[in-house]
Amino acid sequence: MHELGVVHRTIERADREAVEALSRFGVATVHEAMGRIGLMRPYIRPVYQGAKLCGTAVTVLLQPGDNWMLHVAAEQVQDGDVLVAGCTTECEDGFFGELLATSLRARGAGGLVIDGGCRDTDELREMDFPVFSRAINAKGTVKATLGSVNVPVVVANALVNPGDVIVADTDGVVVVPAAEAADVAKAAAGREDSEAGKRTRFQGGVLGLDLYGMRPKLADLGLTYRD
Amino acid sequence: MHELGVVHRTIERADREAVEALSRFGVATVHEAMGRIGLMRPYIRPVYQGAKLCGTAVTVLLQPGDNWMLHVAAEQVQDGDVLVAGCTTECEDGFFGELLATSLRARGAGGLVIDGGCRDTDELREMDFPVFSRAINAKGTVKATLGSVNVPVVVANALVNPGDVIVADTDGVVVVPAAEAADVAKAAAGREDSEAGKRTRFQGGVLGLDLYGMRPKLADLGLTYRD
Amino acid sequence: MHELGVVHRTIERADREAVEALSRFGVATVHEAMGRIGLMRPYIRPVYQGAKLCGTAVTVLLQPGDNWMLHVAAEQVQDGDVLVAGCTTECEDGFFGELLATSLRARGAGGLVIDGGCRDTDELREMDFPVFSRAINAKGTVKATLGSVNVPVVVANALVNPGDVIVADTDGVVVVPAAEAADVAKAAAGREDSEAGKRTRFQGGVLGLDLYGMRPKLADLGLTYRD
Amino acid sequence: MHELGVVHRTIERADREAVEALSRFGVATVHEAMGRIGLMRPYIRPVYQGAKLCGTAVTVLLQPGDNWMLHVAAEQVQDGDVLVAGCTTECEDGFFGELLATSLRARGAGGLVIDGGCRDTDELREMDFPVFSRAINAKGTVKATLGSVNVPVVVANALVNPGDVIVADTDGVVVVPAAEAADVAKAAAGREDSEAGKRTRFQGGVLGLDLYGMRPKLADLGLTYRD
Amino acid sequence: MHELGVVHRTIERADREAVEALSRFGVATVHEAMGRIGLMRPYIRPVYQGAKLCGTAVTVLLQPGDNWMLHVAAEQVQDGDVLVAGCTTECEDGFFGELLATSLRARGAGGLVIDGGCRDTDELREMDFPVFSRAINAKGTVKATLGSVNVPVVVANALVNPGDVIVADTDGVVVVPAAEAADVAKAAAGREDSEAGKRTRFQGGVLGLDLYGMRPKLADLGLTYRD
Amino acid sequence: MHELGVVHRTIERADREAVEALSRFGVATVHEAMGRIGLMRPYIRPVYQGAKLCGTAVTVLLQPGDNWMLHVAAEQVQDGDVLVAGCTTECEDGFFGELLATSLRARGAGGLVIDGGCRDTDELREMDFPVFSRAINAKGTVKATLGSVNVPVVVANALVNPGDVIVADTDGVVVVPAAEAADVAKAAAGREDSEAGKRTRFQGGVLGLDLYGMRPKLADLGLTYRD
Repeated sequence: MHELGVVHRTIERADREAVEALSRFGVATVHEAMGRIGLMRPYIRPVYQGAKLCGTAVTVLLQPGDNWMLHVAAEQVQDGDVLVAGCTTECEDGFFGELLATSLRARGAGGLVIDGGCRDTDELREMDFPVFSRAINAKGTVKATLGSVNVPVVVANALVNPGDVIVADTDGVVVVPAAEAADVAKAAAGREDSEAGKRTRFQGGVLGLDLYGMRPKLADLGLTYRD
Repeated sequence: MHELGVVHRTIERADREAVEALSRFGVATVHEAMGRIGLMRPYIRPVYQGAKLCGTAVTVLLQPGDNWMLHVAAEQVQDGDVLVAGCTTECEDGFFGELLATSLRARGAGGLVIDGGCRDTDELREMDFPVFSRAINAKGTVKATLGSVNVPVVVANALVNPGDVIVADTDGVVVVPAAEAADVAKAAAGREDSEAGKRTRFQGGVLGLDLYGMRPKLADLGLTYRD
Repeated sequence: MHELGVVHRTIERADREAVEALSRFGVATVHEAMGRIGLMRPYIRPVYQGAKLCGTAVTVLLQPGDNWMLHVAAEQVQDGDVLVAGCTTECEDGFFGELLATSLRARGAGGLVIDGGCRDTDELREMDFPVFSRAINAKGTVKATLGSVNVPVVVANALVNPGDVIVADTDGVVVVPAAEAADVAKAAAGREDSEAGKRTRFQGGVLGLDLYGMRPKLADLGLTYRD
Repeated sequence: MHELGVVHRTIERADREAVEALSRFGVATVHEAMGRIGLMRPYIRPVYQGAKLCGTAVTVLLQPGDNWMLHVAAEQVQDGDVLVAGCTTECEDGFFGELLATSLRARGAGGLVIDGGCRDTDELREMDFPVFSRAINAKGTVKATLGSVNVPVVVANALVNPGDVIVADTDGVVVVPAAEAADVAKAAAGREDSEAGKRTRFQGGVLGLDLYGMRPKLADLGLTYRD
Repeated sequence: MHELGVVHRTIERADREAVEALSRFGVATVHEAMGRIGLMRPYIRPVYQGAKLCGTAVTVLLQPGDNWMLHVAAEQVQDGDVLVAGCTTECEDGFFGELLATSLRARGAGGLVIDGGCRDTDELREMDFPVFSRAINAKGTVKATLGSVNVPVVVANALVNPGDVIVADTDGVVVVPAAEAADVAKAAAGREDSEAGKRTRFQGGVLGLDLYGMRPKLADLGLTYRD
Repeated sequence: MHELGVVHRTIERADREAVEALSRFGVATVHEAMGRIGLMRPYIRPVYQGAKLCGTAVTVLLQPGDNWMLHVAAEQVQDGDVLVAGCTTECEDGFFGELLATSLRARGAGGLVIDGGCRDTDELREMDFPVFSRAINAKGTVKATLGSVNVPVVVANALVNPGDVIVADTDGVVVVPAAEAADVAKAAAGREDSEAGKRTRFQGGVLGLDLYGMRPKLADLGLTYRD
């Protein structure tokens, strides 16, 4: 965990079909399908409106004010991957910008989640290269201290193993362990089906109190109505 | 105040015409017309650009990580109401999403102000169901502990009584007591008229120093000009 | 520094051509061209998407909850200036709104950077009057206590002298000392040229590891690759 | 609510005996005895270790950076009162220091709770004049804008009416409505008695699981033990 | 990872001798001996001055506003353990107080680290039961929703596996994987020895510039001295 | 301002007698004597209770996660100096600990103010080496990137020039320009004298309303008393 100075070249990525399946769902749905685990803290936000991503994680452990390992990670990227970067400490410097995005896109990467800052956000919006970060910051970084690539890393309080599926949209970022990707996609689909039925009933004016049968339990707990 | 386990079914809503009148003004104007009281803390933000609401408050007191009372409140909503939810503690979980919005809209609710988190923000934008919240968060909630509906509640440091008018736009959220709604609307109109005149003069290059007659008081206090 | 009760009428503005030259670059580029100094803390954000400014600073030192000095400053504005306002303490009140923007625009000002709050943000967006602030807040201010105009002022941890060039966009706000404006513009141009070449190579799939010749130093420091 | 420019000279204070009774309990106990309502947000902290207070509220509504109303309030203080000050906006200036504490003590006040900053904290510790504040800050304030005294005021998200009992210790600050003070004191005493019995059993090694009979409900919900 | 509704009764604790060895070092030293990994975010603070702990982790995953799993965990505690509690979301409620501390002490627990709030802090100080938390908060919790015990859990951005060694003092909290405890203790001892020699030399007036031989590298990088 | 890679060996320190005079006053008094300017933001706090310092600034500009320049600065320290360190970005790493304190003390330094983190806080308390920082953090730093020593630096939003007097106590940190030190000390003494007289009158029960003659102005502004 959080070993420094190491790059793992071989990682086990989640099944591509499962990733494809997960990409059709929003983060809130996937998080529910996971049993409500695996969510990053909500301070990670998209750097532009409409940013979305779904891919397999190439993980990066950064040092504060130092983006060297993002360059090291670029070489490990395959088509369909996303970079997921934690930091050994809290740092909001601009670790990432348009040139690195250009490089990553050329290597097949579909986006970045970073527990740090990002810059060149206008250019990223124009490129539609999705980045989810804790800050927007023009402050650049150095290349002086080793971190790691493709080690397990904690990002915004969520554990990410290399190869896990990362789903991110305007509601947040969720981590799906590689081995569970297919099952979670199935559960997400089930949940969407069930929600569709509920939506119709809500549109017709049915209350959650009745749809979910909440009234007896509320009464048991002593909820009191007064006129 | 903040009584738990109670739902008040009968509340006195602000006069509908006064609400309609207030809906034509921005939050900054209404807050000035109120004598600069009744504003929520500015950490409450719209979940999408362009969200706006004006309606009578059905109040909710939530428990952390628990959105049960929003379902209980839905039954109390009438046409033209908005939900206004405080929480017994600081909590940024996603208490609210698209299904509840669908239900509320079917019941006539015009939006939500919540001192907590919200999810399904893309869907809310598409529905144009205005939500003002302290966070965006995919984390869902349980239904296990009683709060209350239509009790006075403090939301983002502002006291809200059931039936008060809530006006919210990109500048913030202001609470107008039901009994004062008509007077505040009148004062807001007066303020807009007075601002129109000032705007013209400012456009013509007149300075606030002269428009507001500030120079003598500044001189009295000793403001010094140097070349 | 931070002298109270004084207005300097005569300031030395950066060369207009240099300002014009700087206006063609983004904040991240200018900050790099400055040698990575002069950046404001990243909590200063545009109040609407797409806001950008570049101009010479008329500085303001405000008191908490009091925007009097903004009116005093309006008289000192010349075409091409921007207002840059610090505060003697942390305060997120709405010091600035649409009427003041109207006045400033009539006087030739190109925007505002303020270590405080701003309101009327919908109107500012419609006017396209760029404001960069630490908060959006409908709370108005009084006119009771003296601050200063055109004294050196610290804004979001950056020192601003009257006449300095302020460049602001979605990545942040950077301060360029008046005397260095031309040199920084030149350095920024050089940096853009150099980035263009790199961009092409990144698009072609070249890695930063090779483009920047990083491999030997990484090996020296002991970076280990594992399969 | 939050009316500006008014001083109420006549307020109904909680019964003195009830206040005396409440003073024997900690904040956590009183908050439980209240049914878990009336607690201020936990950002209000004692300015020195060991600070504690219990008294009837003389309320103050301050303007940002302006402590004028604290002087106005001093005249309204009676023996056994405490000052409780909210602010129309978030402000961490040093509204209060040793001279005001000296004045308040001479008038019989037992302490201060303020949703703002405080200074002279070494002197306050030496005087043992308890202050609970949101910040420690040497920045002084002006006397320029009217607020109010003895109006209902929201302080750190809790509603305080003049005459309510305020109990504060290292765990936080809780507000007990004047009319409920005696009942809450009684409930607090009951709770302490019940806790004493539990304490003994916990000391003897009994588990909460057994003491509170939690095992069946945990099993019902599906809690699974694995070896 | 973060599985809900499960209690693992059998965990592999770090070697007791290694824990004993680690207990002689401060957190900063242990963190260095770990190679600078395993540190919790610094918002976790002792609830009273002088609190310190070192023990093997019984881990807990809590739900917001719900401390049920702390009672479940108490049964799993053995002599020399400490509880380490994360939460599925950010929550500063008072999950823990003196009664639970009494129970835990009776079972042999040496303290608590919790990514949540704590209350009864005066009593905890008197008992000298060390707690490290993100907040002090009188707000109590319910017992309604399942979490887990002895699953891997992320606490303040650090991964904790059951049985790991937790070392906490005024400088922070560090996690030592069970399997590495002995090695880390050895490295910490080595570091302390090396620091003793340096301390003597610093006391004699030797500069770090010379002790660490920094001058050539500084000169290489172009550090310029001016008179 | 904020030039990188430079060490100024010759600085003009404030007059030693003036420093000695200033050391007798608290920060709040000095800040008032300065005309209410020069105060750092209040997030800078002493790392142990009772820490106090007063001395002439040797300034340091740090890079994030890198404390190299503190070693460079140690050589520039003279008897009676204090180190004052800003950072090019927000960073809460533990830049400073007991070994560096030992070195600085041996060189004559009287303490440190740092817009960053600090560790070994128990040892610093035992040594009574006063440090004022924005965080306590066991996370160590590297020595890889140049900053500067004895350049003007902004620390917690206050400008510090080398040689300025820094006064710090539990109320905060204030910067007195070297050239104004004697005058400020005189003004501080005057203020203390004036406060002594007021203290006596407050102790005798005189109100600020009368002592400061506030009643007429309050009446003019319309303050209304109600019974």
